Amino acid sequence: MPDPTPTLHSFAGGELGLWRVDAIARVIGEPLTRVPRLDVRVGSSHTLQQSAWVLQGTSSNARYTSAQEQESLTRIQAGLGRPEALRAALIPIRKSPAWWALAQDQRRAILEEQSRHIRIGMEYLPAIARKLIHCRDLGGEFDFLTWFEYAPEHAPAFEELVRRLRETKEWEYVDREVDIRLCRGRVGSE
Amino acid sequence: MPDPTPTLHSFAGGELGLWRVDAIARVIGEPLTRVPRLDVRVGSSHTLQQSAWVLQGTSSNARYTSAQEQESLTRIQAGLGRPEALRAALIPIRKSPAWWALAQDQRRAILEEQSRHIRIGMEYLPAIARKLIHCRDLGGEFDFLTWFEYAPEHAPAFEELVRRLRETKEWEYVDREVDIRLCRGRVGSE
Repeated sequence: MPDPTPTLHSFAGGELGLWRVDAIARVIGEPLTRVPRLDVRVGSSHTLQQSAWVLQGTSSNARYTSAQEQESLTRIQAGLGRPEALRAALIPIRKSPAWWALAQDQRRAILEEQSRHIRIGMEYLPAIARKLIHCRDLGGEFDFLTWFEYAPEHAPAFEELVRRLRETKEWEYVDREVDIRLCRGRVGSE
Repeated sequence: MPDPTPTLHSFAGGELGLWRVDAIARVIGEPLTRVPRLDVRVGSSHTLQQSAWVLQGTSSNARYTSAQEQESLTRIQAGLGRPEALRAALIPIRKSPAWWALAQDQRRAILEEQSRHIRIGMEYLPAIARKLIHCRDLGGEFDFLTWFEYAPEHAPAFEELVRRLRETKEWEYVDREVDIRLCRGRVGSE
C-alpha cells in the first residue's frame, strides 16, 4: 500500500547532489536548463539561490488506481534506494487544460482502459521502481514529477517502458515533458 | 464545467475582511481561534503577521465527479458572489489516514454510492453555491476548505445540507472539522 501521507519532495538541478546528470532532453514544450548534478531532498525544500532550478511536489494518495491494482502493485513493486539502482530518471510532466477539464471517470478511462498506463508499468516491476510526485496543486511549472530507479542492466527495459507510455492516448494530453537521466556510483566507490 | 486551473485561495481570520464571523464551532478535532472577521483572497496569499490564522489551498480539478454528474452540476449550480448571498460558511475538513489509504474506487464508492455526497449537494442547488478548495498536497492543517454562499432565507436549507452530510458513511473518515459561519451586509449598506 502506498504511504498516503503527503511528503514534500524537492529536486534541485545545479552543482551539487548525489545524482550526476547524464542528459536533459526536451520531449515537448519548454526545456529545462542543463545542469551537472541533481540533489534530491525528501521532507524538506531547496532554495533557488544555490540551484539553476528547483522542482517540488508531494507524494500523495493515488488518484486512479483501483483496490485490485493497488494490491498487485504492492505485491510486486520494489522500494527506492536499492544498492544496485545506479540509474535514475526524473521526468516532469504537465498535462493540457483539456485533460484537467475531463471528469474523473473520463480521465480514468483514458489512463487505464485505453492507455493501460498502470498495466504497462506493472510489466516492468520490480526492476523499474517508480514514485509519482504531485505538484499541480502547488502551482508549479509541471503537474507531476515521475521518478524512476533501476539497475544499469535494466536500462533497455526502461527505454521500452518510456517509449510505450509515450505512444498511448493518454500522452496526447501531455503538453510539457522533460526527460532527465541520472546516474550515481556505488556507495563508497565515488 | 468547473474551471480546472489551480488557483490559490487564501482565508485569513483576524481583524479585517469583508465577512463578519458569526460563529466558529469545533465539530471534531482541534478548534480554530475565534476571530471577528475573515478576509478571502483569490489568486494571492496572506501573511500570517496580520491574522490569527491563515488557511490556504487551491481550487483544482474534480476528483470524484463523473462526466454525467459534472454536466448536471454545471447546468444547475450558481456562481459565487451573488448580491443576495449575504451568508457564507467556511468548513475546513481533514480526513483520516484510513481514508487516504483507500484506493480511488473505494473512496468513490464511499463518497457517492454509499454516502450520496454529490447527489445530496445537488438537491440544494442553485440556492447553496459551493466551492471546494484542496489543501492536502500543500501540507496544510486541513485536507479541504469548503466554502458555501447563500441568501439568508436559505439558512435552514444549509443547516439541513450540513446535517445530512455529517450523518453519512463518508463522514466517519473526517477526523478534524471546524465550522465557521459568516455574514456580510449588502454592498453599499455597510
